[in-house]
Amino acid sequence: MSELTARDIEQAAVNLAPVVSRTPNLSALSLDQAAGWPVVCKAESLQRTGSFKFRGAYHHASSLPVRERESGLVGASSGNHAQALALAGRLLEVPTTVVIPADAPAPKVEGVRALGGQVVTYQRGTDDRDILVAEIAAREGQAIVPSANSRHIMAGAGTAALELLTDHTEIGTLVVPVGGGGLAAGTAVIAKHLNPTVKVYGVEPEEGSDTMLSLRCGQRIALPEPPSTIADGLGHSSPAPLPWAVNSRYLDGVVTVTDQNITTAMAFAFRHLKVVAEPSGACALAAVLAGLVPHELGTIGVMISGGGVDLSAFHRLITTTPARKESAHA
Amino acid sequence: MSELTARDIEQAAVNLAPVVSRTPNLSALSLDQAAGWPVVCKAESLQRTGSFKFRGAYHHASSLPVRERESGLVGASSGNHAQALALAGRLLEVPTTVVIPADAPAPKVEGVRALGGQVVTYQRGTDDRDILVAEIAAREGQAIVPSANSRHIMAGAGTAALELLTDHTEIGTLVVPVGGGGLAAGTAVIAKHLNPTVKVYGVEPEEGSDTMLSLRCGQRIALPEPPSTIADGLGHSSPAPLPWAVNSRYLDGVVTVTDQNITTAMAFAFRHLKVVAEPSGACALAAVLAGLVPHELGTIGVMISGGGVDLSAFHRLITTTPARKESAHA
Repeated sequence: MSELTARDIEQAAVNLAPVVSRTPNLSALSLDQAAGWPVVCKAESLQRTGSFKFRGAYHHASSLPVRERESGLVGASSGNHAQALALAGRLLEVPTTVVIPADAPAPKVEGVRALGGQVVTYQRGTDDRDILVAEIAAREGQAIVPSANSRHIMAGAGTAALELLTDHTEIGTLVVPVGGGGLAAGTAVIAKHLNPTVKVYGVEPEEGSDTMLSLRCGQRIALPEPPSTIADGLGHSSPAPLPWAVNSRYLDGVVTVTDQNITTAMAFAFRHLKVVAEPSGACALAAVLAGLVPHELGTIGVMISGGGVDLSAFHRLITTTPARKESAHA
Repeated sequence: MSELTARDIEQAAVNLAPVVSRTPNLSALSLDQAAGWPVVCKAESLQRTGSFKFRGAYHHASSLPVRERESGLVGASSGNHAQALALAGRLLEVPTTVVIPADAPAPKVEGVRALGGQVVTYQRGTDDRDILVAEIAAREGQAIVPSANSRHIMAGAGTAALELLTDHTEIGTLVVPVGGGGLAAGTAVIAKHLNPTVKVYGVEPEEGSDTMLSLRCGQRIALPEPPSTIADGLGHSSPAPLPWAVNSRYLDGVVTVTDQNITTAMAFAFRHLKVVAEPSGACALAAVLAGLVPHELGTIGVMISGGGVDLSAFHRLITTTPARKESAHA
């Protein structure tokens, strides 16, 4: 397959225009003061189903030939991709099956059901969710919609950056969270196309820095253990292959953030921007607030990628995440 | 003074265009399902300084002759108007003094200071804040910027509804919170101008229903005691005179909500819309979710007017506000 191009992302934007929200760009003097630079945040928490994931899921599903999708869609996710897929199926008027871990938060499961999606649960650690998805696809004739490893998923995800960079041509550095890597890949390709001088940085949680380590090693590596991080959406052991091919070429770097950095950013977004950011969704803002992202010129663009977090979990994370024990290294 | 007209609001929109955020219109299937009708929310929580108040404060201040404002601006507020005024002064490059109760939440006071505003505190219950403001105005030569009782404040506030109704011409009913009444007045005038069939309802907290009672009595009344409600921004004892003159003519009605209705709406906005709504800011959504607003045709437009609430207070309100003791009437 040929490489992801800016044209893919521009075509995705045309396809998505009638169905996605053009999410707002948020700024505040308090944010500029805290970051030390002008900052603008693209609030994909406010996207339909609460995250950027709807862009890729709908673009992928709607780009399938009708005969391939007419029996429905199937995918695996513990969170945002599940709800995105359920809405895509609803809009395309086909059934959707989502494979979700049995211990997923009830509201996310309810969210999928409220959109008409069928939920199949599996036991984390014992069941292989990919095999489950393949079995359902074979049995029901449903099309598999991956969460990151697809050219259309990457292209759809990149439309958020296309909107942001069109609105804010003064952006010099763009910062996005990296999980499977689809958002980073789409973002990097469109950013470098619109302005080759724009720097694009990915952000990972410290415990799930598979893309950073892969970049250092010059090849896709797998972490020895599944990452343990509050940023559940970014807890990948290894970069997805297609996004990796793009990110290894286009990303200017990846930085990592601690759980404490993340909860600080979640609280900042609540207080100063008035939006809900889940841990994964707050990682890019966390890196900028902690001064971890190299920046020289212009405005910093930040992707707040999702808001899928309960109020009780939100409050607990912010009030109980311990400060990092820096003194251990003193 | 002649009556507030749609032309005032259209002129305010032109004046405000370079400085305000065009805040997003939020919708969700879960919201439509909960309300029983299509609903769209104008998220003024995401306005600069976190509420619609910036629209009126800047419009009023910038419309003053330069010689009247060159020594600065002064106003009284316990919350959103204070920060709005501080930002207006900063943008107009004049000093700002805000008279704030000594027991106001620290973040609001810090917010004013971070914007360069000077804070003067007073003791609620013993000091008369209006006299304090008048003294400062006389001593410093500063122009008083009221929070509601001004034609420019009403016109500026009405620009939020102008944006919403321009984007969503299918709106049949528009619902806004009522405190001093400036937002309701500007909203009602522009709504009836754009489409005379649109119904406009105000929402007050049960304990602060001064505008509803005034409408019933056919004259401005004053509540015997200062209202005790979690919707601190709507705790007025009596409608402000200029907004009252408009609202008594144009509003189709006022409904009241309980503290429990309000916290339910705050939690709903957090969970399904991913935005922060303070108690006052959530009142219109509360009324719609509780089925209290008459509606026959089209979409319901809801103003989420502000997000000035701490995370700790937000969590405490939602987890501790008792359900209303309906059984007492059973």
